[in-house]
Amino acid sequence: MFISTVTANSGAMLLLRRCRGLTLLSTRRLPVAPAVASCAVRLRSSSAEDQGSYQRAHRPGWRHAVAGLLAGTGAVLAYGLHQHKAEQEAAYPIFSQEEVTSHRSLQDGVWVTYKGGVYDITEFVAMHPGGDKILLAAGGALEPFWALYAVHNQEHVLEMLSEYKVGELNAEDLKKQKTMQTLDPYSSDPERHPVLRINNLKPFNAEPPPEILSDSFITPSAFFFKRNHLPVPQVDPATYLLQVEGLPGGLLTLSLEELKTRFPKHTVTATLQCAGNRRSEMNAVKQVKGLNWGIAAISNATWSGARLRDVLLAAGYGPDVARRAGHVQFEGLDKDVTGTTYGASIPLNKAVSEEGDVLLAYEMNGADLPADHGYPVRVVVPGVVGARNVKWLGKIIVSADESSSHWQQNDYKGFSPGTDWDTVNFKSAPAIQELPVQSAITAPADGAVVDRSSEELTVKGYAWSGGGREVVRVDVSLDGGKTWQVAQIRSSEKGQAPEGTPPTGRAWAWKLWEITAPLPPGAKELKIVCKAVDNSYNMQPDTVAPIWNLRGVLSNAWHRVNVKIREDEREE
Amino acid sequence: MFISTVTANSGAMLLLRRCRGLTLLSTRRLPVAPAVASCAVRLRSSSAEDQGSYQRAHRPGWRHAVAGLLAGTGAVLAYGLHQHKAEQEAAYPIFSQEEVTSHRSLQDGVWVTYKGGVYDITEFVAMHPGGDKILLAAGGALEPFWALYAVHNQEHVLEMLSEYKVGELNAEDLKKQKTMQTLDPYSSDPERHPVLRINNLKPFNAEPPPEILSDSFITPSAFFFKRNHLPVPQVDPATYLLQVEGLPGGLLTLSLEELKTRFPKHTVTATLQCAGNRRSEMNAVKQVKGLNWGIAAISNATWSGARLRDVLLAAGYGPDVARRAGHVQFEGLDKDVTGTTYGASIPLNKAVSEEGDVLLAYEMNGADLPADHGYPVRVVVPGVVGARNVKWLGKIIVSADESSSHWQQNDYKGFSPGTDWDTVNFKSAPAIQELPVQSAITAPADGAVVDRSSEELTVKGYAWSGGGREVVRVDVSLDGGKTWQVAQIRSSEKGQAPEGTPPTGRAWAWKLWEITAPLPPGAKELKIVCKAVDNSYNMQPDTVAPIWNLRGVLSNAWHRVNVKIREDEREE
Repeated sequence: MFISTVTANSGAMLLLRRCRGLTLLSTRRLPVAPAVASCAVRLRSSSAEDQGSYQRAHRPGWRHAVAGLLAGTGAVLAYGLHQHKAEQEAAYPIFSQEEVTSHRSLQDGVWVTYKGGVYDITEFVAMHPGGDKILLAAGGALEPFWALYAVHNQEHVLEMLSEYKVGELNAEDLKKQKTMQTLDPYSSDPERHPVLRINNLKPFNAEPPPEILSDSFITPSAFFFKRNHLPVPQVDPATYLLQVEGLPGGLLTLSLEELKTRFPKHTVTATLQCAGNRRSEMNAVKQVKGLNWGIAAISNATWSGARLRDVLLAAGYGPDVARRAGHVQFEGLDKDVTGTTYGASIPLNKAVSEEGDVLLAYEMNGADLPADHGYPVRVVVPGVVGARNVKWLGKIIVSADESSSHWQQNDYKGFSPGTDWDTVNFKSAPAIQELPVQSAITAPADGAVVDRSSEELTVKGYAWSGGGREVVRVDVSLDGGKTWQVAQIRSSEKGQAPEGTPPTGRAWAWKLWEITAPLPPGAKELKIVCKAVDNSYNMQPDTVAPIWNLRGVLSNAWHRVNVKIREDEREE
Repeated sequence: MFISTVTANSGAMLLLRRCRGLTLLSTRRLPVAPAVASCAVRLRSSSAEDQGSYQRAHRPGWRHAVAGLLAGTGAVLAYGLHQHKAEQEAAYPIFSQEEVTSHRSLQDGVWVTYKGGVYDITEFVAMHPGGDKILLAAGGALEPFWALYAVHNQEHVLEMLSEYKVGELNAEDLKKQKTMQTLDPYSSDPERHPVLRINNLKPFNAEPPPEILSDSFITPSAFFFKRNHLPVPQVDPATYLLQVEGLPGGLLTLSLEELKTRFPKHTVTATLQCAGNRRSEMNAVKQVKGLNWGIAAISNATWSGARLRDVLLAAGYGPDVARRAGHVQFEGLDKDVTGTTYGASIPLNKAVSEEGDVLLAYEMNGADLPADHGYPVRVVVPGVVGARNVKWLGKIIVSADESSSHWQQNDYKGFSPGTDWDTVNFKSAPAIQELPVQSAITAPADGAVVDRSSEELTVKGYAWSGGGREVVRVDVSLDGGKTWQVAQIRSSEKGQAPEGTPPTGRAWAWKLWEITAPLPPGAKELKIVCKAVDNSYNMQPDTVAPIWNLRGVLSNAWHRVNVKIREDEREE
């Protein structure tokens, strides 16, 4: 049944995905079952007569495409595309927007428009690398989605699309579309500090330079790493309403003012880390899918707000609920053009525990939340991966189920290094919640040169662990891991008195560490390594390859920095 | 101030310890302050006249000894000892037991007897590798202590002792001593299953063969690893009383019957692991101090008993207590000849949490606790190192402080690989509570030979993590870690339906895993490796050396087993 391929087209490969993948992506508006069923049927019935219509005659050789898909590469697809290019005609029929809109399902065909062209992408749905999210554009324009997901702005994507052209949109409807599309969903994103290193502009993803990161125990909000999944929503604090669902008290709705006044204000110093922090080190081993974060997708701030626990109790939470529910879901107010919001969930026991310290935060570092960090209200889930700390919080749902969002179900999970996109089963791994022990060297930078005359070297960095586990030691090596010294660690701003030891299991904030060591005599290069130990005595793994995973998350191997020693010229 | 040494005598080195170490060892009977003060004074005033007496003239050259001590080696000490040997006379004065007993402090001198000889070991106290525990024998006989701590039964120990001889015990008192000493404190220890591999007989420490370990999800009690620190106490269930101290209700005393009837019986399946499990792998890197455990100092059982939380609530525990107290201490009924009991403590929040599942267990695998496992009552602290699961429980103390016991303060802690016995500061590391993620291969055994004709190989093992973190994946490699496959894991007896997923943070039981893989064509040897991942996505470190520590605890690097493939003779 499987057809092997001879050559591989990497562009097409990137866009391919198994039919199976479809089962994992669902949205509220378009239940996935029909898509899957259709996919299964289409893999078996390859002739056109069963669904013949004008435009189907123009579709590319999708039998070839499916063969390529099954084989896990796009080589056959690419071949098929080129074969059919010659057959295309310049004269296309004209369609109205209404006609296009009537094709918005796999049953009726999936049509989209792009710059005035009308495309029947029914056959492409199963191959879409983003899964059936593509169905959100069914019957409408692609532009708003491509503006959200900039990965589409590549030549080979346009080439693929052109193969599916079936007509042109009439002039009047095209004009209407253009008027609407001049709105860039990211146009109202806030200004950002220019020192940030941008990994992606839309949505905005950026990290501070490492040297700045370890300058302060509390990361100034401007330098705090930013990881948005969608455009920053404009929220009016006067009309903002937080909804709490799924509890015996019925729907609880809270204004910002009520959230601030009805519940005690609670302050927690907590480090947030992106699951993809240090992904670039995994990319160096073998390419992964995701933003190429350096070591600074982690920052530390003080957060103030109402405790989620208190709000849930006010909404009727009690032991009865614990028996039927297991999760607390969060929905952001950030949404794509279809209204799909960012979403995530955390285990109920974390949410309601007195010691969980989960906040509905409205302040960051003593001021209102900045727009990029969730104004006016975000969830702060100390000890848990950044992705569950939902920003611009709109809704809280206590449920028996995890969030059904893409980011909970089909992203932010860890897999074995032997698992690839052909074999991955997202259901087989738990959604990342607590993160493993982590540390990195912020100074010196990799490749730095140190003068022999300076006689000693100061190495600095951060260390943190998930689940409230306190970092109890950081070991530093200058010889690639053969010998180790213990770094000085601190849990406050330099020069300030250290905060007391946090209660067991509630060490939410990172530690900064530093060690000054004499330059080893005769050494021409230092292979600096750091590794942290937390109070469960978990340690970082030695190397990256054995923890490599296809999404490049959970990158917490020893951090390594190489430094050259320049001999003093007078001595040479 | 520090004197360097030229050569090292390894026997003496082993027995040496910094004066500083003394500050960390204290017992209720003999507060440590005088010992430390004395030590400090003696390092400065080196002449004998200030405390002159008959026997002091016989003491060995302790100025040399102290110099050696300061330099961290025994070389100078050894030199001093030999120099003074010649000066000793055969004719010793005769002392009564009463005279010996009057020397039981550093102020009055510390005398001990051994086989009829009288020894003034005042100067040796600071050098005793077991710390000031040696003071427990002050004024009495060494034999009962040496019977407890078999490490003393070595020739060089007797040689060192002989240097401190100051007299002989009179015949009558010697006779009395001998009568008392015929009682072996271990004589009432229970029978054990002969298949156990004994690491130490007195106290009894043994583990099952690995192949037996992975045969059953619930380890039969007879095969469950045994780790005793002292003789097994004989406890009469009819007169057994458990004391609970430190709570507003005052002292609560519970008989076994009351414990069983006043509180609901709660059953937990929990894995216990010794901190020293897999220590032999650390020993292979560099010698550590401790029993040479293989991979089977870990087992899984069902435990039933009263919840500690319920008992503490009955004794008056409430939120007020949480504000002043931080620890729950446990004292065993197992004791040494001085009455010092085994002791340990756990954080209060683990003890009182509804989700902590800490038990005062009176049943193991559905029957009364066996004598070796704490009959009639032991603590079971799921997710926490075996050493805190105090057996033969006598007393529970809610306190602001950790247990002051040797095992809590000066043992069962982790250190950097660069830390040795000269530099270790036990106060710098937290007492081990939650253990890190762990896994090991139980079959095949290292060095096994597999026939090529068998075509495939089944690899089996266990995996577990501390703190209730569930093992979510076990990766197995047959090529030393280059490529990985995912093992099948199970959480029940083979053939039985798997238990449901435990609630988040309450995965107390291990998982057994198994993978059957074809023998790689052409391979002559398989380098089998396993590593586990828990739901905080912590992973085991790759190698042993970077996590090596002087006590050989927390040995959780990838487990490696090498297997040879024998080619089928017909094919050769």
